[in-house]
Amino acid sequence: MSHLQQSFTVQFVYNVFFTEKLFDTTNSLFADFFHQQATSATQKKLLFVIDSGVVETHPGLVAEIKAYFTQHADVVDLASDFLIIPGGEIAKNNPVFVEKIVDAVDTYGIDRHSYVAAIGGGSVLDMVGYAAAISHRGIRHIRIPTTVLSQNDSGVGVKNGVNYKGKKNFLGTFVPPIAVFNDSTFLTTLDDRDWRAGISEAIKVALIKDKAFFEWVETNAHALAARDMDAMQYLIHRCAQMHLQHISGGDPFEMGSSRPLDFGHWSAHKLEQLTNFELRHGEAVAIGIALDSIYSQQLGWLTDADTNRILTTLRTLGFSLYQPMLDADNSAGVLKGLSEFREHLGGQLTIMLLKDIGLGVEVHEMDATLVRQAIATLREHELSTTV
Amino acid sequence: MSHLQQSFTVQFVYNVFFTEKLFDTTNSLFADFFHQQATSATQKKLLFVIDSGVVETHPGLVAEIKAYFTQHADVVDLASDFLIIPGGEIAKNNPVFVEKIVDAVDTYGIDRHSYVAAIGGGSVLDMVGYAAAISHRGIRHIRIPTTVLSQNDSGVGVKNGVNYKGKKNFLGTFVPPIAVFNDSTFLTTLDDRDWRAGISEAIKVALIKDKAFFEWVETNAHALAARDMDAMQYLIHRCAQMHLQHISGGDPFEMGSSRPLDFGHWSAHKLEQLTNFELRHGEAVAIGIALDSIYSQQLGWLTDADTNRILTTLRTLGFSLYQPMLDADNSAGVLKGLSEFREHLGGQLTIMLLKDIGLGVEVHEMDATLVRQAIATLREHELSTTV
Repeated sequence: MSHLQQSFTVQFVYNVFFTEKLFDTTNSLFADFFHQQATSATQKKLLFVIDSGVVETHPGLVAEIKAYFTQHADVVDLASDFLIIPGGEIAKNNPVFVEKIVDAVDTYGIDRHSYVAAIGGGSVLDMVGYAAAISHRGIRHIRIPTTVLSQNDSGVGVKNGVNYKGKKNFLGTFVPPIAVFNDSTFLTTLDDRDWRAGISEAIKVALIKDKAFFEWVETNAHALAARDMDAMQYLIHRCAQMHLQHISGGDPFEMGSSRPLDFGHWSAHKLEQLTNFELRHGEAVAIGIALDSIYSQQLGWLTDADTNRILTTLRTLGFSLYQPMLDADNSAGVLKGLSEFREHLGGQLTIMLLKDIGLGVEVHEMDATLVRQAIATLREHELSTTV
Repeated sequence: MSHLQQSFTVQFVYNVFFTEKLFDTTNSLFADFFHQQATSATQKKLLFVIDSGVVETHPGLVAEIKAYFTQHADVVDLASDFLIIPGGEIAKNNPVFVEKIVDAVDTYGIDRHSYVAAIGGGSVLDMVGYAAAISHRGIRHIRIPTTVLSQNDSGVGVKNGVNYKGKKNFLGTFVPPIAVFNDSTFLTTLDDRDWRAGISEAIKVALIKDKAFFEWVETNAHALAARDMDAMQYLIHRCAQMHLQHISGGDPFEMGSSRPLDFGHWSAHKLEQLTNFELRHGEAVAIGIALDSIYSQQLGWLTDADTNRILTTLRTLGFSLYQPMLDADNSAGVLKGLSEFREHLGGQLTIMLLKDIGLGVEVHEMDATLVRQAIATLREHELSTTV
């Protein structure tokens, strides 16, 4: 029988801007963006959704944004209401927030050429990105990430999502933002845990792809722990750049089987869940990196010296590398994370391990006994450090 | 300040197959498809969602599918349950159906490399396509359209969607299917209205792009009205081909402003709504085509002779070209459809009119007085025909 073959490519382009004091009336970056986007046809609208945690630490933010668009009134019509949404997993767990945004899109007549901007941590960005992606088959979505993790990793990428009946990111799409604005001002008010947590994604990407970048982190670990902003800005810029290169150089919408940037993540996802999200994603990833580095060492792939450099760098940054839930060795334990990780990716299990610092290699199985040994090693290190 | 530019292209490829008796055990087309998709890694799963209207007219269908996959058990794991969903706008209006599919994706462990196949009319395909697109950020979606309209138009394209609080396609995404199977066997059991309704999309695309195809429809209008299957198969193949070419040759995900294939659609969308979806989409499009053809004639763009050829062809096919709601001339009337059409597309209003048969031209405004005159002409024609 006959068939017709359909084949086309779609190009996606967006910029990730680095700035400070984005809404200071003297900073024209944001207004310039709307000017460049403008077409003669119709005035675009802009709706803001803001993480409540950001509003708490930046109580003047809404007034500042209003003042900004009073000054730049010609570029876009600002929706009169600002939606304030709780940050963290709550934003992704409760479906009422997606509905709130969809309803606001309707109320304010936000069409496919208008904008929904989200200011917040990764969870709020994921949830708002999802609501924008499904409204009118996709409204233009601007991301303004406020944490280290979202500025160097999730916020600059192409994924969005919400949880469904307790299943992480069960609903979501691959849709790039129209622009990302990384404003370092928001980093100054982060608590130490959030400041630190985002660094683990930079270490992850350095370990599997860029030895020089790992050595930079190693050298600057004390400065980063002491909240040196210049060091942090370099780290975010380089990590975001590598994340973007990984997306554009590979399989942006993950139609194939592998996700080689996910070093240390199979156990991290499970640990987050086992600790009821008490452990932040980046904290869990630090443990996951330590675990899979030791596993690589046990395979004889990574030298003892290099393994210790990795563990020492993580500890210098202030990460704790052991969590008691690692030892919940039953059917719901951390090893269950392997099958869940496969199911989430679809297709074959693919895990990244290290052949060297800066050289990740994919494997398709992990040995449960070796994983338990790696956990035992982490527990011993922890006991010897805290005694 | 500095910025990083992200830029990448994503290629989308899928086949639209034409066949009959797809689930006859002697027809290997469907099994071959899964063979070609197979990778060594893991066995894929397949979940079926079927339009209840199709199950009524094809009561043996589920048993036939089960027998097919008993015969071809190696290609894919068939989920034991079949979801049966009401057809028509109900499928898109009630959010419970999307939830049912998402829950089944969870229950049967359908991962991103497994399949959700939908058998049914355009509404069921739109709804299932949406559920598949948002589950796990996109599960492979197979479409098996069962109506003329879905086989030649919506079912072969890249859009999905559901209604939200009465707003048509308010939620949806652009995600291509992994394959489309057009089985002409399903057309034999369509009632006359559904058989006819799908033809208007073929006339639409012929009028704006392909004079020879319009002349073919004109010549074969009696045969099509008499349910000649060979004529219908040719019409569907050519219309689907032009629809696919329009998508791949233009702006597949409609990131720009125009949708030039939407001739006759601004009033059709509104008429469907005004008649509470009593009028089928294709029936409304036939009226919309007649209205915008007369409007083009009034502008002096289309000759009287050509206008009459269009109206005569539509009437020979059995379309009624007047609907009393056309005269609901108030703020909720058909003219409101213009602003709603603009809002739905986003950006500038873009309407396709005819300079000639086979030659569509975009305009960015329509004159309300001329629209009312065109409606009056349609009403007079209707009265003179029925007296």
